[in-house]
Amino acid sequence: MSMLKPRTPAGTMELLPLDQIAFQDMLDTIRRNYERFGFLPVETPVFELTDVLLTKSGGETERQVYFVQSTGSLKQGDAPELALRFDLTVPLARYVAEHEHLLSFPFRRYQMQRVYRGESAQRGRFREFYQCDIDIIGKDELSIRYDAEVVAVIASVFRELAVGPFTIQLNNRKLMRGFFERAGVVDGEQQMLVLREVDKLDKRGADYVRRTLTGEGFGLPAERVDEILAFVALRSNSHSEALEMLAGIGGGNAQLDAGIAELTEVLNLVKGFGVPEASYALNFSIARGLDYYTGTVYETILTDHPQIGSVCSGGRYDNLASHYTKSRLPGVGISIGATRLYYQLREAGLIGTAESTVTVLVTQMDAALMPTYLDIATQLRNAGINTELVLDSGKLGKQLKYASKAGIRFAVIVGENEVAKSVVMVKDLSKEEQFEVPRSELIKALRVEIEQAEALGELKRRGGKADRPS
Amino acid sequence: MSMLKPRTPAGTMELLPLDQIAFQDMLDTIRRNYERFGFLPVETPVFELTDVLLTKSGGETERQVYFVQSTGSLKQGDAPELALRFDLTVPLARYVAEHEHLLSFPFRRYQMQRVYRGESAQRGRFREFYQCDIDIIGKDELSIRYDAEVVAVIASVFRELAVGPFTIQLNNRKLMRGFFERAGVVDGEQQMLVLREVDKLDKRGADYVRRTLTGEGFGLPAERVDEILAFVALRSNSHSEALEMLAGIGGGNAQLDAGIAELTEVLNLVKGFGVPEASYALNFSIARGLDYYTGTVYETILTDHPQIGSVCSGGRYDNLASHYTKSRLPGVGISIGATRLYYQLREAGLIGTAESTVTVLVTQMDAALMPTYLDIATQLRNAGINTELVLDSGKLGKQLKYASKAGIRFAVIVGENEVAKSVVMVKDLSKEEQFEVPRSELIKALRVEIEQAEALGELKRRGGKADRPS
Repeated sequence: MSMLKPRTPAGTMELLPLDQIAFQDMLDTIRRNYERFGFLPVETPVFELTDVLLTKSGGETERQVYFVQSTGSLKQGDAPELALRFDLTVPLARYVAEHEHLLSFPFRRYQMQRVYRGESAQRGRFREFYQCDIDIIGKDELSIRYDAEVVAVIASVFRELAVGPFTIQLNNRKLMRGFFERAGVVDGEQQMLVLREVDKLDKRGADYVRRTLTGEGFGLPAERVDEILAFVALRSNSHSEALEMLAGIGGGNAQLDAGIAELTEVLNLVKGFGVPEASYALNFSIARGLDYYTGTVYETILTDHPQIGSVCSGGRYDNLASHYTKSRLPGVGISIGATRLYYQLREAGLIGTAESTVTVLVTQMDAALMPTYLDIATQLRNAGINTELVLDSGKLGKQLKYASKAGIRFAVIVGENEVAKSVVMVKDLSKEEQFEVPRSELIKALRVEIEQAEALGELKRRGGKADRPS
Repeated sequence: MSMLKPRTPAGTMELLPLDQIAFQDMLDTIRRNYERFGFLPVETPVFELTDVLLTKSGGETERQVYFVQSTGSLKQGDAPELALRFDLTVPLARYVAEHEHLLSFPFRRYQMQRVYRGESAQRGRFREFYQCDIDIIGKDELSIRYDAEVVAVIASVFRELAVGPFTIQLNNRKLMRGFFERAGVVDGEQQMLVLREVDKLDKRGADYVRRTLTGEGFGLPAERVDEILAFVALRSNSHSEALEMLAGIGGGNAQLDAGIAELTEVLNLVKGFGVPEASYALNFSIARGLDYYTGTVYETILTDHPQIGSVCSGGRYDNLASHYTKSRLPGVGISIGATRLYYQLREAGLIGTAESTVTVLVTQMDAALMPTYLDIATQLRNAGINTELVLDSGKLGKQLKYASKAGIRFAVIVGENEVAKSVVMVKDLSKEEQFEVPRSELIKALRVEIEQAEALGELKRRGGKADRPS
């Protein structure tokens, strides 16, 4: 038979088991924090009907869409009826509009699924990647206070992810547009265009943006552009400095006043949520390219790894689902691109290979003792301890090597001598120590060892508590 | 703006949040048990390269495949380079072959992801559904003992799913083919064809199969066919009866002898794993249509709901990845079709809507007390208690109604009086009771209530333990 080379499509991330465990731990941490803040799970199909998904004509997004066709539809040359989701926001809009009358508002949902984009293939760019989103959707209205709660969620997630210090950077679209208005950009669409240019500051630099804004198309006076560039260069270094910065802007028009008031309230509530001052700051250059943001916007950076860019972004929008329903559904939300985040953290050496989800390997010293091994493994499993049992024959040394390589912490060893004495030998493969315990004390002894290792951060809590007597 | 009707594609299952929680609980139970038995997580991309996925030409499978194309590729009229996985077995074969030198064998992996099939649209048939698979893959060889361990895993999963009594039905392909051989079907391919006919017994009935086997093509003598039909009608009712049935077959050829020996060993080990007798039985009609099974085969039925059919099936195969590697990789595995299982259990009334993942709603009686509410919510969250906080204003009665409807168990109520007395009011919305506790005792008091509700099975363990001081 001719062989096919086994390989994955470009732009996908496939992991070996111990890396998959590390990635899964990351997703679990995100999910645990989302649930802790009262968000409810939603999952949507990987594909949507093409007309439902592609509500906006043209644009970057559509060119990156993957279309899906069944064999029959492909043969008939039909236009594809289905397409893979490219984010979780459009499916959320469709979901909320479709189930509107069955949902309670404010609707707080989290969704952690893969999305698909036909990105050009290059290292670190993914065509399939996880997004982990939360959104709070109101009906007709939604208090600005939720914008502050979102900051508390981000802080909680990244504290528990334990990837070093981070800064949640805050800005407000009304503030920006109001400032541009005061600087002479009166037209609303023109304000959005200036905002898009400002969004390019990081990539293109101030000189490029200055040339564009003073050049044809915009034609702003140089001193106005300088004013804008000075404004968007502002960053706060403490809570009180942030408040002072806002107070120092001065008012001038309704948008600007609203933006200042909103950001001030958000800042004060963020403090009220107990978010440490070092974790958040104002950054007046944060614009988020997407048109639908209308108020608060967020970007989060890892303080020691700014080159990674934003690891969690989002903002406030006026109306989620105008394509699908006449109800006005304002909301605020964020997204963590978990695949990219994991990949970047691993590249930066901040995430390593995990220990195994398997805590104990019950070795096989003597096939004649199989009933004993089965019994021990069953007892451990009934006690909620994740256990692998060696059922193929092989040398003990090889089995222990396997356990070490597989990241399994403990090996249980029983031979004729141990059976005669009603004991078992437990080998801690990390400490390279071993000890003998009475067979009846095995679970108790292992629990003590596991708890110690967990307390020292050497082991993650696995397997949950026992739920039936052994 | 013209409205689009928000809707999901046919053949997908999308759930409201409280149903999604029930479904997620089911997936978590399956995952927890898989991990408890030492299986490691693997995830693969949703799509595979078309040539890698479709190794076999033609057939039912290929006609049901969904092909994927980027916008650019579609416009150029290219043949689709990608296709959605239709099961988790082909991706496993590709994964093991691709990463062979980095894996430890026996390789125990679990995989819980969605798969895609262009099924004809009808109620209860899914085009997108979760499969939850485990497989143990050996290199060159894999002890028959693993076939027994798989039964222990199935028993553990379904016991914890708590969906009533179940029977894991066992059979062995060698036993069947050996029996057919003894009954005069000497040719190996002919044996497989008989096996396929026997597999239709449930759907078509004995008369149909008798006519086929005695008719053209097979042309077996009526008495031989009766012998075969009597054989495949056999079921055991206890462990000892199962052993007697096997002993009573008598030998006759190498295949038959091997099948009897394998099933006998599996049965004895299943008992050694502590699986209750009532949970497993021999059923000589279980064939599993798929060609690649070569030994033990499994089907699991819910005793009180036989109409649901098999809820967990699988078996032993000789060689996993012959299309991708020259290594011989024997294995044994099972699959739970979780979407269909959930759907069927819900239809049968065995699974209801879950309580919320949110345990506490901190209500807002008086906006002036917002700092207190923020503080209480933050304390609860820091203590690992999943908490929603009302940030929009609204009447207390409406907030409590919201909590009831949303399946939230406890509401925390604080007004000026409570602040003055440094207490909080806790309302148990399930018992319709309320009690006052000192503010400093809130977490302790709620933990007691939550533990009691968990112990009574009224609440599921949520949120995990606190991981930082409040």
